[in-house]
Amino acid sequence: MDVARLDFLLELDKAKSVLRENPIADGSRRENDAEHMWHFGMAALLLTPPAIDRWRVVTMALVHDIVEIDAGDTIVYKHDPDKVERERLAADRLFGMFDGGAELRAVWEEFEEGITAEARFARALDRLLPVMLNHASHGVAWRRNGVTASQVRDVNAATVAASSPELWTYIQSLIDDSVARGYLDDVPG
Amino acid sequence: MDVARLDFLLELDKAKSVLRENPIADGSRRENDAEHMWHFGMAALLLTPPAIDRWRVVTMALVHDIVEIDAGDTIVYKHDPDKVERERLAADRLFGMFDGGAELRAVWEEFEEGITAEARFARALDRLLPVMLNHASHGVAWRRNGVTASQVRDVNAATVAASSPELWTYIQSLIDDSVARGYLDDVPG
Repeated sequence: MDVARLDFLLELDKAKSVLRENPIADGSRRENDAEHMWHFGMAALLLTPPAIDRWRVVTMALVHDIVEIDAGDTIVYKHDPDKVERERLAADRLFGMFDGGAELRAVWEEFEEGITAEARFARALDRLLPVMLNHASHGVAWRRNGVTASQVRDVNAATVAASSPELWTYIQSLIDDSVARGYLDDVPG
Repeated sequence: MDVARLDFLLELDKAKSVLRENPIADGSRRENDAEHMWHFGMAALLLTPPAIDRWRVVTMALVHDIVEIDAGDTIVYKHDPDKVERERLAADRLFGMFDGGAELRAVWEEFEEGITAEARFARALDRLLPVMLNHASHGVAWRRNGVTASQVRDVNAATVAASSPELWTYIQSLIDDSVARGYLDDVPG
């Protein structure tokens, strides 16, 4: 048994303390990265279409936010010029902790680049979940951050629509319902 | 897009509010099921040997505690005669929410039965993580529940040693170190 690999497994526990902007569905508190990666992993298991490598998408889901243990969470609606460099340094440290870390780093880089069909679908799922949880929690994080419906549409359309028109239709229905219920302001963009 | 499947995905959010006995590594609070299933999924990715179907183990990790959304968490050191029936009813409801739920239910049943090589290794990983987190947190949950070293050895030996002698050696080293540091009482069994 490679002890360095077990040390990495224990280090991963810190993802349970990295808080995201979006809430859990009942709105009672913020979600953390570990919970999000599990929920995303289940979304990958449940929703990946047959033409896409489901296990690659599941692995991306489980791995994609590990770098936030060092780099922290960044809300998609805010500009953060240092994010790329912070996450690169985090990847150097975390995926460098054990022999074989390069395999996980390659999965993370594929997700970040968003070029392969697997990465594009994974990125669409990573957009679905915050919209679903914000809708379920009556827009808690949207209201806290002053996010508008046109911002939600702009951020999600490019990522989701090209990879999965069906998911994009569903996300649009959640956005429209959020506007109708007053969870999200629909000011002109 | 099957809306029932998306409703199930949202229902899964409730696993983030099911608290386990064991703490996160810094001892600051209890772990929840969603965090645990992610950590277990990463353990499966990192530690499954080549002779065992890694994706089956990863899927078991992500799915194995979903029934606790309805049935609640049960500590392994306490007798709970109604657990099996509670979890069966939970599986009926949760995996019955969408077409295709039978696939996930079969994975959960395989894990519970613990017969296949994949299920046996998954069960060994599910034992590793609480020992690792109790050791890291100086025995918080062991001390709260009055658990002794011989109980930890008895509960884990049968599950872990037969599936993975290497993991069992590692777990024994954590138990021995916990006794040496006073995190765990070593009273005669």
